[in-house]
Amino acid sequence: MEKRNATVAVIGAGDFIGAEIAKRFAREGFAVFAGRRNGEKLEPLVKEVEAFGGTIFGRSLDARKEEEVAAFLKDADKHAPLEVCIFNVGANVNFPILETTDRVFRKVWEMACWAGFLAGREAARLMLPRGRGNIFFTGATASLRGGSGYAAFASAKFGLRAVAQAMARELGPKNIHVAHLIIDAGVDTAWVRQRREQIWGKEALDNPDLLMPPASVADAYWQLYQQPRSAWTFEMEIRPFGEKW
Amino acid sequence: MEKRNATVAVIGAGDFIGAEIAKRFAREGFAVFAGRRNGEKLEPLVKEVEAFGGTIFGRSLDARKEEEVAAFLKDADKHAPLEVCIFNVGANVNFPILETTDRVFRKVWEMACWAGFLAGREAARLMLPRGRGNIFFTGATASLRGGSGYAAFASAKFGLRAVAQAMARELGPKNIHVAHLIIDAGVDTAWVRQRREQIWGKEALDNPDLLMPPASVADAYWQLYQQPRSAWTFEMEIRPFGEKW
Amino acid sequence: MEKRNATVAVIGAGDFIGAEIAKRFAREGFAVFAGRRNGEKLEPLVKEVEAFGGTIFGRSLDARKEEEVAAFLKDADKHAPLEVCIFNVGANVNFPILETTDRVFRKVWEMACWAGFLAGREAARLMLPRGRGNIFFTGATASLRGGSGYAAFASAKFGLRAVAQAMARELGPKNIHVAHLIIDAGVDTAWVRQRREQIWGKEALDNPDLLMPPASVADAYWQLYQQPRSAWTFEMEIRPFGEKW
Amino acid sequence: MEKRNATVAVIGAGDFIGAEIAKRFAREGFAVFAGRRNGEKLEPLVKEVEAFGGTIFGRSLDARKEEEVAAFLKDADKHAPLEVCIFNVGANVNFPILETTDRVFRKVWEMACWAGFLAGREAARLMLPRGRGNIFFTGATASLRGGSGYAAFASAKFGLRAVAQAMARELGPKNIHVAHLIIDAGVDTAWVRQRREQIWGKEALDNPDLLMPPASVADAYWQLYQQPRSAWTFEMEIRPFGEKW
Repeated sequence: MEKRNATVAVIGAGDFIGAEIAKRFAREGFAVFAGRRNGEKLEPLVKEVEAFGGTIFGRSLDARKEEEVAAFLKDADKHAPLEVCIFNVGANVNFPILETTDRVFRKVWEMACWAGFLAGREAARLMLPRGRGNIFFTGATASLRGGSGYAAFASAKFGLRAVAQAMARELGPKNIHVAHLIIDAGVDTAWVRQRREQIWGKEALDNPDLLMPPASVADAYWQLYQQPRSAWTFEMEIRPFGEKW
Repeated sequence: MEKRNATVAVIGAGDFIGAEIAKRFAREGFAVFAGRRNGEKLEPLVKEVEAFGGTIFGRSLDARKEEEVAAFLKDADKHAPLEVCIFNVGANVNFPILETTDRVFRKVWEMACWAGFLAGREAARLMLPRGRGNIFFTGATASLRGGSGYAAFASAKFGLRAVAQAMARELGPKNIHVAHLIIDAGVDTAWVRQRREQIWGKEALDNPDLLMPPASVADAYWQLYQQPRSAWTFEMEIRPFGEKW
Repeated sequence: MEKRNATVAVIGAGDFIGAEIAKRFAREGFAVFAGRRNGEKLEPLVKEVEAFGGTIFGRSLDARKEEEVAAFLKDADKHAPLEVCIFNVGANVNFPILETTDRVFRKVWEMACWAGFLAGREAARLMLPRGRGNIFFTGATASLRGGSGYAAFASAKFGLRAVAQAMARELGPKNIHVAHLIIDAGVDTAWVRQRREQIWGKEALDNPDLLMPPASVADAYWQLYQQPRSAWTFEMEIRPFGEKW
Repeated sequence: MEKRNATVAVIGAGDFIGAEIAKRFAREGFAVFAGRRNGEKLEPLVKEVEAFGGTIFGRSLDARKEEEVAAFLKDADKHAPLEVCIFNVGANVNFPILETTDRVFRKVWEMACWAGFLAGREAARLMLPRGRGNIFFTGATASLRGGSGYAAFASAKFGLRAVAQAMARELGPKNIHVAHLIIDAGVDTAWVRQRREQIWGKEALDNPDLLMPPASVADAYWQLYQQPRSAWTFEMEIRPFGEKW
């Protein structure tokens, strides 16, 4: 593995998508800065990456706090120029409108939209002077569709998509690639498997073609990163071949 | 004018669109509850409506406060059954991403999205037991497009649209008409005229066909209200005939 | 009923939507020119309209033939200025891609897209010199979504929508209102009832809230016609309150 | 270069995008079947590919003729299993609606939509029995937007997109990847350069960041081809970093 003089920041480095993104970019020689609420949970990921010779730094990070986000990204940028910032915080919930409390609505927005705005803006602050960089956001079906019960989640995801669009239009001509990846499927995580089983029974897990492996999401981000600036994608949706849409 | 035993609540009853909506429904015999930040500014509207024999109540209302919104709507509903709730709070700003402060981003969201969620939810709470009602939201070009500099505004408007969609899908089958009206144009207000003059010079105001009269927005809401439930519109966009799009 | 010196042309005046549009505008005092493949089938409609004192002319019309369309509209315009032209030809079919024959694909396109282009263009030809007019197109769910098995139908409906958009952008500033009405539901026709029964059984017809009465579509067109030019809608979707979407 | 036992068919193998796609896949070891109206014009491409050791067959092909398309693809499939079929026929024209003749409207549709339907269906016919394959369609800004003057072109491109969607939904679960690539920019071709110069003057060509190199489109197709079936993209839009959108 040839090391690069560049860092990738993963904000929302959970056990599934976030971890796979971290591994993917670490294997390509990037130094990875991985942040999640409880940094201690990053230990297995750090060990795995270091085991194959990759460079990774795990940090506790409340992505809703401006100063923490700014400090996290500055740190990454001090280690080596911040080449890619990926915002991957999720907050999928479903409640009937009357049961969607103020607290839930606000918290989901803070995690899935507000934190994304902070991450994008602070990454841009570091990248603009250098005139290069990549800022990617993880979207979902709910980025495009406000389904019944999804007032809180879809509102936050719609809002995040708008942030991404506005940034892409402003920063693209300044050589910063802003992209929004829409995962139009359930991702294969413990939580999704459990939920599907609750709703549809065990059979729902029989068809492996309907759940997206987290590593495939990482592949999609890698593709976005490799695009030449003469042909950047702003929005790309991915789904497993068996998915109905 | 035949009075109806029904109220219309206008949240965000500003001098232009909000005021015209209030007059339109008052003329049709509804009791109107008009709320805006500074209730004193509602005096001219109240006088105008009362002058033609309409019923109107002007209230100071911080639409970002759950209890205030709930109390305002309950009050309206006590006067007569709440038939229509129209959310019309705006917060159009444009800043480069690096100058979009936390304060601005959060405030715009609280005014244009969060307050809309509160209004919609509290209206639904009153309407659901009766099994009828109408909840309308004012959208804008920025509800569909995150233009450069519009990270804050578009994020809030996208988010509001998601709230409206989720509510429409949940509440439609329960006989509550939720709609989202997209005004894809500048509305003819003092502020818009001033801004256009600043940006493009006096000539920008020469073409009257490019600015939408606030009364036309009120007409559109009236059309939405009149639709039979066998053919409801969720989303309708309006623009002046001379507008480029 | 006060007669107006204006005609409305309905191209695709079938027994359901087309007939209701004809009756609606006839009741408002317009002279109606109704065209359909087999003009003899228009007899009951003509009788019904004449019975209430309306003015209507029924004609055999192959909407896929340029000269027939041009002659039909010229005729209408000679009677009185052509104020509204509504294109309402449908051609809903569903076939797996391998069973979608050349003949089907071409015929569906000729009926649902090509004929719409002819109608729109020839109406514009008559309206432009007068600097006023209205051209409306009937769309469907398939105007926005290419569902499995709908390659032929959705392709034609997508294409019709593009024609409508291009015309709206060109003709709007010339005071001609071009609109596209999306009916996102099954319309209550003999054919739809029969198909639903075949697919889902008799129960599928038990819920009257899921089928749209043709008269409601006519209402929607009437709303579009009444909009002031300061606030025109290009696209409006309608669906029954019980519909899932 | 390692040769693969697989063919790629390029329908609409023009001098720019089509030729670059052919070269890209030939370099990856595929046998390429390149078809265009006048097959003689393929000579330089064939020579270039053969010079670097690639396998390519150039054919005259009227993509609007069912039998020709079927024969072309069968031929490719006989040489080696048809792995990828790319439909790349364009027909960009702009006319005011009244000057959009029947002939133009029909011809543009036959080239850009009808031919795409034939290509997709015939490719599917060969791929379905094998349970694998890739069918890609080239889209444009006009696939999503019916701009003024684009009734013919946008109608055809909208229609092609619907075909692609319907096929993707039907064939995806059968392991055939159907994708629609939207090129939201001018591609750097002789014709586009000439048109831009006519409209905006020589300066319009000064900014190289606004024209997309045909090779970048080929790269995008290669990315789509490499996606794992657990995370397929149906629609991906690409544009140069300097493009306004």
